[in-house]
Amino acid sequence: MNASSSATTTGGVATAKGFRAAGISTGIKATKKLDLALVVSETPATAAAMFTQNRVQAAPVLVCKESLQKSGGVVRAIVVNSGCANACTGDVGMADANVMAAETARLIGCPVEQVLVASTGVIGVNLPMDKLRNGIPLAFAALSDSQGSQAAQAIMTTDPFPKESCTTIVIGGKSVTIGGMAKGSGMIGPDMAPALPHATMLAFVTTDAAVPQPLLSRALAEVVDETFNAITVDGDTSTNDTVILLANGASGATIGDAEYAPFVKALRAVCLELALGIVRGGEGATKLVTVTVTGAASGNDARRTAKAIATSLLVKTAIHGGDPNWGRLIAVAGRAGVAFNPGGAKVTIGPVVLFENGRPYDERASEAAEYLRRKEVAVSVDLGAGSAMSTVYTCDLSAEYVRINAEYRT
Amino acid sequence: MNASSSATTTGGVATAKGFRAAGISTGIKATKKLDLALVVSETPATAAAMFTQNRVQAAPVLVCKESLQKSGGVVRAIVVNSGCANACTGDVGMADANVMAAETARLIGCPVEQVLVASTGVIGVNLPMDKLRNGIPLAFAALSDSQGSQAAQAIMTTDPFPKESCTTIVIGGKSVTIGGMAKGSGMIGPDMAPALPHATMLAFVTTDAAVPQPLLSRALAEVVDETFNAITVDGDTSTNDTVILLANGASGATIGDAEYAPFVKALRAVCLELALGIVRGGEGATKLVTVTVTGAASGNDARRTAKAIATSLLVKTAIHGGDPNWGRLIAVAGRAGVAFNPGGAKVTIGPVVLFENGRPYDERASEAAEYLRRKEVAVSVDLGAGSAMSTVYTCDLSAEYVRINAEYRT
Repeated sequence: MNASSSATTTGGVATAKGFRAAGISTGIKATKKLDLALVVSETPATAAAMFTQNRVQAAPVLVCKESLQKSGGVVRAIVVNSGCANACTGDVGMADANVMAAETARLIGCPVEQVLVASTGVIGVNLPMDKLRNGIPLAFAALSDSQGSQAAQAIMTTDPFPKESCTTIVIGGKSVTIGGMAKGSGMIGPDMAPALPHATMLAFVTTDAAVPQPLLSRALAEVVDETFNAITVDGDTSTNDTVILLANGASGATIGDAEYAPFVKALRAVCLELALGIVRGGEGATKLVTVTVTGAASGNDARRTAKAIATSLLVKTAIHGGDPNWGRLIAVAGRAGVAFNPGGAKVTIGPVVLFENGRPYDERASEAAEYLRRKEVAVSVDLGAGSAMSTVYTCDLSAEYVRINAEYRT
Repeated sequence: MNASSSATTTGGVATAKGFRAAGISTGIKATKKLDLALVVSETPATAAAMFTQNRVQAAPVLVCKESLQKSGGVVRAIVVNSGCANACTGDVGMADANVMAAETARLIGCPVEQVLVASTGVIGVNLPMDKLRNGIPLAFAALSDSQGSQAAQAIMTTDPFPKESCTTIVIGGKSVTIGGMAKGSGMIGPDMAPALPHATMLAFVTTDAAVPQPLLSRALAEVVDETFNAITVDGDTSTNDTVILLANGASGATIGDAEYAPFVKALRAVCLELALGIVRGGEGATKLVTVTVTGAASGNDARRTAKAIATSLLVKTAIHGGDPNWGRLIAVAGRAGVAFNPGGAKVTIGPVVLFENGRPYDERASEAAEYLRRKEVAVSVDLGAGSAMSTVYTCDLSAEYVRINAEYRT
């Protein structure tokens, strides 16, 4: 997979037929930046979703899970606020998340369980419900198929830019659009599984294909593993992570087993662009780093080693400083808990091999340093223990990351 | 255990009877700072040692293991250089480490396997052997029972200050001294077990008690688990970690089962002071943070959760900024992979309870912020799932950490 692969069309969460979106300011954020997003499907859509695996789950996550159970995976809308995570907020928080869904459902005229809810921001603070009660009707009134970008802005917290992606494919002679938006700047650490991403990472993807629920869930799980699950900013896992994929069938095209492969390919392109956007916009990030581990004894070993490298402070700071400190790469591989013989390993920074057959080539360090001046860099470790591989995307660690996170609340 | 507990006597690695030390400059470091330390026991000492668990092990670690095997745990000297880790240096590195031991053994007049070797510094660069060949005799000539501080300085890399500790106890009417030195500023992450610390953490402890080898190893393993194994700076694990404990019996006191408890207590005090020194001197550290997890279902759960909190960038940056962002503590506990019910958990910053019985007390945040202005702070999470507990010591994460590590080699 190439870090520069991207979806083909401009657009986002409201580009697929039959979807509208809005993003407004309710005043949850003291800055008056946009903080409430609404995504609505004209008709009931089939939904697939994945939520944080954190044992501490925010109220909106718990409400979503319950609603999806109740509705059998039929969804009309997603309402999202930024600026407050509504996590660790007890019974009040649960009631507040339910009110967000109920207010939205009332305006749409649908059952409350057909509205999903998401929140992102500070943990342990109650939602300012007066602002949300006022805001939801305003967002509803602003719904438009041209307001996807506003919605993408409204879900941002410390994100330096909004993340949108869109692509169109032809299925059975019909044009099918897949578009989405995502946010996530800190608390980004890889460890998703069906019904469980991580990080205050939110991603909402819509398509006008009709996709049976089991196939939609399978596609989402498959794609998330190689995209949202393959990124890290700081290795932390949020209480609020949510990925939701809605398919409303408005294109007239239906995805069956025969159409599954091209559909997944397009979905992957959209999700990868959103995921890489999260990394590029990682807190304090100045570089996108692709970490590839090859020659592992198993896929699990490969992923584990790649994640260890991608979350190592020593690796991330060295890359920030443009320092070809390849010894840190092999040292991290060595503590990742996977079996390999260091003498058979190989360490590469960009095109430059710095360690191979047990021998260092430190004389090539200046060549590697030159390569590390780029904005997008690749490092790789071959474990020499098998044929499995894994790619994880991360960013460098800068002093700016510390500044952002030391002052987040204050 | 109290973070402020300390050993009682001034002194270090050369304070126990029958030990001498030296620290000199050989020019390995371009700065001409001290870079070669030597510790010698007048008589063969009993040794216990623990080494990095990293799968990539530096040449000196491999040489030490072989020598200890060969000598049956009898050691006369430890020779240590800073400025170059002699890791990932292939056959040349192994030969170089052996030469360091052989040169030292030649001067002492002991078998080569009675000399242990340690190195710390950049990975993947060969040792400048001409400088070491010149330096070892100079260090040997400088050996003195008053040069422990020079040795402590000579093992430093990015350490802002040397770490020494010493205490004296009376065993069977005889005065027994335990003293030591340590270094370690980055690549400090907890995960030691017998024969396996981590981080470029080096610690050398000497005692003039006579201790049978099995008892000495048991004491070291027990103490390391609560000291060097309970600290973290950046969660990374070095290829060179080494803890060596030498007991030469020069005090005339012998440690048997009856004397084990007071001996371990004194050893723990020395090792804890050294370990906390490593954290206080952690790269860019401005605060010492004691993380205590109580109410865990098992000791393993408690340690795992405490480590997760102590290595979380979000927690470490918040504490750096004096931000009582307690939600991050519970969020990290939630992703630590241990079983607990968030509704029964409790989060405390210093004396301030911020979350209990599923309810946030965010109104107390300013009180907690005031507490966080201290240089030494404590945070705790009670999981409400049992009675096991664990304490881990860490430091905050500052922009200075990034600066140090982005520029380490350059």
